[in-house]
Amino acid sequence: MASAFVSYHACYNISYSLAKDIHYLSKLKLPKFNIRGNGSTSAVTKIRASTVSTVPHVIENVDMDLKQTRQNIPTTKQFVDPHRQGSIIENGVRYRQLVVIRSYEVGPDKTATLESILNLLQETALNHVWMSGLLGDGFGATHGMVRNDLMWVVSRLQLQVEDYPIWGEVLQLDTWVGASGKNGMRRDWELRSQATGVVFARATSTWVMMNKRTRRLSKMPDEVRAELSPWFIEKQAIMEDTPEKMKKLDDTAKHGTSSLKAKRSDLDMNHHVNNVKYVGWMLETMPDEFMEQYQLCNIILEYRKECGSSDIVQSLSEPDEENRTTDESLRSLNGMQIKYTHLLQTKGEVKNEEIVRGRTTWRKKHSKMPFPM
Amino acid sequence: MASAFVSYHACYNISYSLAKDIHYLSKLKLPKFNIRGNGSTSAVTKIRASTVSTVPHVIENVDMDLKQTRQNIPTTKQFVDPHRQGSIIENGVRYRQLVVIRSYEVGPDKTATLESILNLLQETALNHVWMSGLLGDGFGATHGMVRNDLMWVVSRLQLQVEDYPIWGEVLQLDTWVGASGKNGMRRDWELRSQATGVVFARATSTWVMMNKRTRRLSKMPDEVRAELSPWFIEKQAIMEDTPEKMKKLDDTAKHGTSSLKAKRSDLDMNHHVNNVKYVGWMLETMPDEFMEQYQLCNIILEYRKECGSSDIVQSLSEPDEENRTTDESLRSLNGMQIKYTHLLQTKGEVKNEEIVRGRTTWRKKHSKMPFPM
Repeated sequence: MASAFVSYHACYNISYSLAKDIHYLSKLKLPKFNIRGNGSTSAVTKIRASTVSTVPHVIENVDMDLKQTRQNIPTTKQFVDPHRQGSIIENGVRYRQLVVIRSYEVGPDKTATLESILNLLQETALNHVWMSGLLGDGFGATHGMVRNDLMWVVSRLQLQVEDYPIWGEVLQLDTWVGASGKNGMRRDWELRSQATGVVFARATSTWVMMNKRTRRLSKMPDEVRAELSPWFIEKQAIMEDTPEKMKKLDDTAKHGTSSLKAKRSDLDMNHHVNNVKYVGWMLETMPDEFMEQYQLCNIILEYRKECGSSDIVQSLSEPDEENRTTDESLRSLNGMQIKYTHLLQTKGEVKNEEIVRGRTTWRKKHSKMPFPM
Repeated sequence: MASAFVSYHACYNISYSLAKDIHYLSKLKLPKFNIRGNGSTSAVTKIRASTVSTVPHVIENVDMDLKQTRQNIPTTKQFVDPHRQGSIIENGVRYRQLVVIRSYEVGPDKTATLESILNLLQETALNHVWMSGLLGDGFGATHGMVRNDLMWVVSRLQLQVEDYPIWGEVLQLDTWVGASGKNGMRRDWELRSQATGVVFARATSTWVMMNKRTRRLSKMPDEVRAELSPWFIEKQAIMEDTPEKMKKLDDTAKHGTSSLKAKRSDLDMNHHVNNVKYVGWMLETMPDEFMEQYQLCNIILEYRKECGSSDIVQSLSEPDEENRTTDESLRSLNGMQIKYTHLLQTKGEVKNEEIVRGRTTWRKKHSKMPFPM
């Protein structure tokens, strides 16, 4: 199956450019792969915690059995998950989950927050891997990846929001994967209203593998390709244009906040600052008056480096020059969009290091919200 | 049904003591109430946005109809909610919902965070009201409360955690309500493992009504009592001891953080700082080394005043004197608990105003977590 995701961040200690590495990887001619799997995992050895002596062995087996009972991670492909309300559809490759927008997932306007939507993307990606029977660790790595000491790192994420779901709304969230170059994976999502079928949001992301020990990007091993490729489909949620180059902001940026620091509660189960927190930091610089009038309709994130829990982070953002020179009356016309560039970086004594660059597009909020304000 | 909750905070602009008011209310002799409802809302007029002229009327009706289609709030009692996986059980009064702990609801140790548990309490309370057909607004007020311009305010919340659910674990979360004195309501919760039936957590809370215009606490009107009382049951999730008096901390407290301020993303759909954020602020002062070794097993919150989005908040906490004098070797014994007192207050130019007082109890974390760390 599909694998995916999980901690939306390029990892730490990469001393060279992730972008350059990805470019290099996409040029590599890999041996033609041999499909050894068909989505079933019958050939996959059940992974147990490594053991060093007899007594720890027993304890660890007990722990893993307890974990298995409580968490119930399947070791073979499942088609229906009644608890998560998920199912595998479309010839066994696409994952669909029903979700209801909860009371604490909405903001003051009673529509789902951007953070909630990003959280749901993460959740369904992991559940897709879970359903595949391939989940080798908590971060979306397959058994083959675990055997090869590999983890996923995300290099790019784009989310387009047509409309925001409201509190209590029932949604269908679909996700699927495809090949991205020779060594990468694309993961897409589509979020619809269950009642009307109307699309609320679409997203796409690109993933590469990194060796956990060397912290270097890796080619996709054949055994991992055999696990993943039966799940790959061509369909794309967002048609790719030639990606526009994102300029790098500096201290002259119009809006900025420094001294952001991860709190204990910002760390995810990978002990990293979560991608969703990054987006929160990015948007914290936006002026209040702007956020009251505009809503985000597109965000593109390019990940460069992970931020550790002790890093001090600076968030910069700047509206496009053309927005600023546009006459206010024009800007307020329905359909007129405003664009911003963003940068999160760590402030080092010697040099700053980029964590993520972003581009956001904003449109005027509907004058009539689904709820009286 | 039951009503309950939603924004876990006493409201703003109360110029007198909430505690005193609650005391006064509990002494009032109210006329014996007349049960007019039986949980059905056939007699309840459907609420529409108030209208001032013909054109807005039409627009508002369209809006309300759209909202109804998208959100689908029932106007009569429902017994099963397939989307939220909720049902009304136990002679039609207790609400049970199945929930799965999601990947972003756990911390670095892969167990559900305190914030996630509190969020789920809020969510199930609201869904209980939703199922009752009595939901009059987004904050858990009944139709009768909306007609009387009343809202819920929470005065006390206690949560006991036996054990923390892990990532992917399937839970049964039950909630129900009872009378609290003459004019208040008690809402309780019980959180169990679906697989084993073991109780993870229990919670209880006390609610009173406040007039939205005058910002004064209110007696429970007969029509509201008629809506709520058919849902009241005696059973309590946590047996009440005589509540211990919480001392008020001052600037001499051992740990403290000042200049906390709500961010845009901290505001809930009631435009207030959410209770869960309060708890986050409260625990932010706790030392890292302590939090690595200990886990919270009991928290009691006493709400005094709501904090506005522009308030600057100070968080203070202090371990009990007896903890500090206890020998370290004793403290580390399994079962030895550590207690803290907490205070959140706004720092005013003239005087500080209390938002919430808290007491927490902590025990050593299990040496063996369900996941390898």
